[in-house]
Amino acid sequence: MRLRPNARILIRCPDQPGIVAAVSGFLAHWQANILTSQQHSTDPEGGYFFMRMVFDAGAIEEADRQRFEAAFAREVATPFAMDYSIKWPGPGPRMAIMVSKADHALLELLWRWRNGELLGSVELVVSNHEKARDVTQSFGVPFHCLPVTPDTKTEQETELSHLLASAEVDLLILARYMQVLSPAFVQRWHGRVVNIHHSFLPAFVGADPYRQAYERGVKLIGATAHFVTDELDAGPIIAQDVRPVSHREGVPALKRLGRELERSVLARAVEAVLDDAVMVHENRTVVFDR
Amino acid sequence: MRLRPNARILIRCPDQPGIVAAVSGFLAHWQANILTSQQHSTDPEGGYFFMRMVFDAGAIEEADRQRFEAAFAREVATPFAMDYSIKWPGPGPRMAIMVSKADHALLELLWRWRNGELLGSVELVVSNHEKARDVTQSFGVPFHCLPVTPDTKTEQETELSHLLASAEVDLLILARYMQVLSPAFVQRWHGRVVNIHHSFLPAFVGADPYRQAYERGVKLIGATAHFVTDELDAGPIIAQDVRPVSHREGVPALKRLGRELERSVLARAVEAVLDDAVMVHENRTVVFDR
Amino acid sequence: MRLRPNARILIRCPDQPGIVAAVSGFLAHWQANILTSQQHSTDPEGGYFFMRMVFDAGAIEEADRQRFEAAFAREVATPFAMDYSIKWPGPGPRMAIMVSKADHALLELLWRWRNGELLGSVELVVSNHEKARDVTQSFGVPFHCLPVTPDTKTEQETELSHLLASAEVDLLILARYMQVLSPAFVQRWHGRVVNIHHSFLPAFVGADPYRQAYERGVKLIGATAHFVTDELDAGPIIAQDVRPVSHREGVPALKRLGRELERSVLARAVEAVLDDAVMVHENRTVVFDR
Amino acid sequence: MRLRPNARILIRCPDQPGIVAAVSGFLAHWQANILTSQQHSTDPEGGYFFMRMVFDAGAIEEADRQRFEAAFAREVATPFAMDYSIKWPGPGPRMAIMVSKADHALLELLWRWRNGELLGSVELVVSNHEKARDVTQSFGVPFHCLPVTPDTKTEQETELSHLLASAEVDLLILARYMQVLSPAFVQRWHGRVVNIHHSFLPAFVGADPYRQAYERGVKLIGATAHFVTDELDAGPIIAQDVRPVSHREGVPALKRLGRELERSVLARAVEAVLDDAVMVHENRTVVFDR
Repeated sequence: MRLRPNARILIRCPDQPGIVAAVSGFLAHWQANILTSQQHSTDPEGGYFFMRMVFDAGAIEEADRQRFEAAFAREVATPFAMDYSIKWPGPGPRMAIMVSKADHALLELLWRWRNGELLGSVELVVSNHEKARDVTQSFGVPFHCLPVTPDTKTEQETELSHLLASAEVDLLILARYMQVLSPAFVQRWHGRVVNIHHSFLPAFVGADPYRQAYERGVKLIGATAHFVTDELDAGPIIAQDVRPVSHREGVPALKRLGRELERSVLARAVEAVLDDAVMVHENRTVVFDR
Repeated sequence: MRLRPNARILIRCPDQPGIVAAVSGFLAHWQANILTSQQHSTDPEGGYFFMRMVFDAGAIEEADRQRFEAAFAREVATPFAMDYSIKWPGPGPRMAIMVSKADHALLELLWRWRNGELLGSVELVVSNHEKARDVTQSFGVPFHCLPVTPDTKTEQETELSHLLASAEVDLLILARYMQVLSPAFVQRWHGRVVNIHHSFLPAFVGADPYRQAYERGVKLIGATAHFVTDELDAGPIIAQDVRPVSHREGVPALKRLGRELERSVLARAVEAVLDDAVMVHENRTVVFDR
Repeated sequence: MRLRPNARILIRCPDQPGIVAAVSGFLAHWQANILTSQQHSTDPEGGYFFMRMVFDAGAIEEADRQRFEAAFAREVATPFAMDYSIKWPGPGPRMAIMVSKADHALLELLWRWRNGELLGSVELVVSNHEKARDVTQSFGVPFHCLPVTPDTKTEQETELSHLLASAEVDLLILARYMQVLSPAFVQRWHGRVVNIHHSFLPAFVGADPYRQAYERGVKLIGATAHFVTDELDAGPIIAQDVRPVSHREGVPALKRLGRELERSVLARAVEAVLDDAVMVHENRTVVFDR
Repeated sequence: MRLRPNARILIRCPDQPGIVAAVSGFLAHWQANILTSQQHSTDPEGGYFFMRMVFDAGAIEEADRQRFEAAFAREVATPFAMDYSIKWPGPGPRMAIMVSKADHALLELLWRWRNGELLGSVELVVSNHEKARDVTQSFGVPFHCLPVTPDTKTEQETELSHLLASAEVDLLILARYMQVLSPAFVQRWHGRVVNIHHSFLPAFVGADPYRQAYERGVKLIGATAHFVTDELDAGPIIAQDVRPVSHREGVPALKRLGRELERSVLARAVEAVLDDAVMVHENRTVVFDR
């Protein structure tokens, strides 16, 4: 597993002069070299300001981190009314992946995780089918099958919540999981569920988007990774990509070609989320280049 | 002006064995070498068959062309129940371009036409504003201003029809023309009006698509060239393209970046139509590679 | 395993009038419906003509195929001096994959093969390292380790030849195999070895192309799939792709990003070769769209 | 003409802790809100640090700017051994464009300039041919023809230098200028000449790159904008792009398709340079996203 190699401060606050000076002055005082820094303002006059600073925490001993955090809250965060988080070097988020029958997006994530490309760990895989059991277990990852029928849906979601809680999961990835989660569940996991939709949203919301794309005769097909919210396929978009198609491709060919897109778009989105590069503001994302 | 350098046969008929043999046998009998040939079948069992054959008409003297056409109708087209057309070397379609205030797509077409890249001629430009007059006339192309108000709309469309008729226009290009044409006009020009829409259709139909794209927070913006039909922005798609954007771009930046897309997508679609490479079937296009 | 679902004729001959008529007339006579057809001429006057016709062989019983082939040779191929091949429905080429330590391109192919996306079979994997043994065997594919030192190179290549012969391999895929094969071996396998090179050839021939790319400061990195010939990285190109990079990416990041390209470009090239869509002419390829 | 709407500080110095704090603290002291900020370090241990800070100069009256600059030099730049520049709101760089016969890249720049998309002004166009005179003058830009023969080369370059000096040109754009400038001239204009090369460098250096690309049989063609240095086509790369091609395109088609690439890649590079977003380090560029 790959560890987060350095520390980060993530900030969201009303924009005003002096924010960068305050944060960077604080870090300089603690001898912490800024490695990369990205910022975004929705509007310098009365808008919101977003910042991701990656810094070398080497000069700050573990014993001093609590003191660092308290000082930051008092001296910087409070005066500027910041929403913020500080992340120290070490293990990244703990993920669960949910999947139905199509296992290509699951496999892509398991692969990248095994290759040390993800700043987080895959703790378990949950599916409403048995199909992905063998491949999941061959990566040494626990697999749970929770078949869903209209009658068992509530009960299975309770079981799912138990599984996620006992594995201390931080982030839930829907890698072509074809069931809709309940509003209550989505609410509880707000901002922590990433889904891959197999179209260029907002085109072709809902079921069978490749058939919809075929019927509309589009010349590009797409995939969209987004945070899940109450409204179907309408949450904040993290990543999107497309590829050209022509009159030659029928629905099965679109599905086959689309699989490659879905894999890479979901993996790109998950990598950005794990790297603390994605912030949400009014149903839109800020995705910092790293 | 660039002339169509060789002859073409375009065919649409129910699929069955023997079509290619019949057409190519006919051409071989007339000593006409096939230069390129593309075909497509929606379904070999009971579907539709489309073909575009480009052939060297050098061996067929102009005096014999009528005889060639009559023989083709009798020996090939009738037995296979073909919709078809035969085009001989010579001048391509005569175009009119309509535009409102933004002139980037107009200029792109005028430029390519002047450079001899288009297999057709620009006969006139019509606008509901005066803005594009100077640049149009600097290319030696007649410019007509037909301002549109709710009251004058019908009358101006009659005037437009007269202008198109007297210039013997075959193909009408809406290069960011922001008025909606009447159903009656669209009906009369069915299959002969190409529009550029500034989004990746079917996402963001209608007005101000860049604002819609900004608000949805998409990570790609697009442009779509399509034939105009009764239903707004819902006609057969000829070409589409996208480019990546991020949280950094506001609506004005999306508009600026989108202009480059609109120019290239419309030009690509117009070039394909002029080159007899686009066929329509049930609101979808077959666009042959040339 | 996916079987070739229909029959094909692949043709290469000097261009002249009547070729399409002869082939399609022959097929019509045998009641064989042409499903798709692609053709290319390097020059209608004295150039070469290439064609790939896919046809429904359902009307031709297996017992009649030899007669079909003899008739085609006599009536069509000989008069037009064709190089050609006829492929009937059934199993596709038998592949061997060679790999060194990096297994991403190998896994991509094994995966697509298992998913039934390849028109051919993976018969064995050969490596100069043990690393890929477990993953290969988890797909049920035999794995052979042939470590190479300057002293053992000739001997190991003899062993490789035996392995390929006894598995009746038709096509050899170098999926990041980092040893150079001998000229004699390459000669024997001419036109049947596909390699993936981790740059946009002809830029960055030879070793460590990502380091070369970093040092040159390019803004795109690429991958190239090509047939192997005597000259290093100079054989006919089958497929290429690129993706944008910036000053932010060092060599390790370029390698990581490049893996995704290498996987998709090699897979695309192998799929085209297995689908009989690639023909070679004077160190250039004709790659037909299917 | 579009004016630079805000102020910028561009910095290059050895990396060490405290740089961001020093600069942002300085700006906060002057009440200057940071609008966007980008930074890059080649290596936090002993590498070089690059920064571009865009700030609102509204609180700094013009009369105080000299004092601001002196204080910055003393308090920030000197302690950190910075190469730096400060740019105030106002007119951007003054450009000259050089061109030979093909005028597509010239026109693209003139267009964008006229549309107010460039943060700089086109002061003159110089060519070794008369061809571009009319179109240049239609934009109200002075045109100078300096035909070049082996005998007149030195003399014409002297004349060119006079023209550039008297128009107070800051930036020279070679928009398909097919003559090689002398080493002495290039030396004098080091870092201030941008060229568009019609290939994906470093592939196909030198003359007739589309023919080279055709002969190598590549499946993508490209264009590269770079700063001009002594070594032909080897200077720091600013922007690159490619588009797919196939066996169907001969050299003329590659040239035609390539024109669109050349236009957009050169325009993108020029826009980045004019926006102070490009810094050079050891033959590689840092190109900040804006």
